[in-house]
Amino acid sequence: MKYTISALVEIKTGVLTRSAALFARRGFNIDSLAVSETESPQVSRMTLTVTGDDRVLEQICHQLEKLVDVIKVLDHTRDVIVERELCLIKVKVNRRTRHEVVQIANIFRGEVVDVGPGNLIIELTGDTEKIDAFAQLMAEHGIEELVRTGKIVLVRGMQPT
Amino acid sequence: MKYTISALVEIKTGVLTRSAALFARRGFNIDSLAVSETESPQVSRMTLTVTGDDRVLEQICHQLEKLVDVIKVLDHTRDVIVERELCLIKVKVNRRTRHEVVQIANIFRGEVVDVGPGNLIIELTGDTEKIDAFAQLMAEHGIEELVRTGKIVLVRGMQPT
Repeated sequence: MKYTISALVEIKTGVLTRSAALFARRGFNIDSLAVSETESPQVSRMTLTVTGDDRVLEQICHQLEKLVDVIKVLDHTRDVIVERELCLIKVKVNRRTRHEVVQIANIFRGEVVDVGPGNLIIELTGDTEKIDAFAQLMAEHGIEELVRTGKIVLVRGMQPT
Repeated sequence: MKYTISALVEIKTGVLTRSAALFARRGFNIDSLAVSETESPQVSRMTLTVTGDDRVLEQICHQLEKLVDVIKVLDHTRDVIVERELCLIKVKVNRRTRHEVVQIANIFRGEVVDVGPGNLIIELTGDTEKIDAFAQLMAEHGIEELVRTGKIVLVRGMQPT
């Protein structure tokens, strides 16, 4: 099964390595990982999506929480969350197909952020399924490059965090 | 100085750990890291922003490229790129301030994605400076939680990749 985990960690060299190693050692694949600043200057937030076994995950979260520079670990499996991901796609276009690609991008509320002689770069935000669906449509035109941020999540305001 | 690096890596347990370890060992801070799928099913793309010394970075990129599961490393320092980051911010609001917060979000082309009794979650996309500026404005109202994806980049279409 797929899980989404958030970890608040102190900004220190090596904490990322040690956290990632925990998952690797237990054979968990990290499908996506986003690490960046937070509202606190000394704290980073890692958002991981991982695939693996339920019970093993619980153990990993527990071990993660024990690491010196890890402040808090949140397993979002049962949370009501807002989840978003960002994607940049460079799609092959020619005079004939450019209009169609832009039209599809508009339907998905994507934004054309660069126009090259034979390609377009489109920026798209949404949940993982939306981005998968868009990428699949673009694949028919030919994707030159695709980069995604990986999912980030926040627990909705009605819920205690 | 700050640098942005992309690395295309094979999806294998442990490659992330080994890559992160390379930077940690040389005392490079990873300011942000985004890892996710690409256009190829067996390949992940890592986008790192790091702070450190120019010459040391060159060595690290070289060593990174030598790792078994690393396909390609791109230093974007001299590239003309599109860079984007995604942010979710949970901001404290009350009846008096809600309207003002929504108004600022609109100016930044942010989107309100959740409304709680005492807070809003706003989704914002842009370059790092734009997100920093918005977060600073929101700090006056009180940020309950903030999560960012870290920067992703694509080289513009006019340039050879």
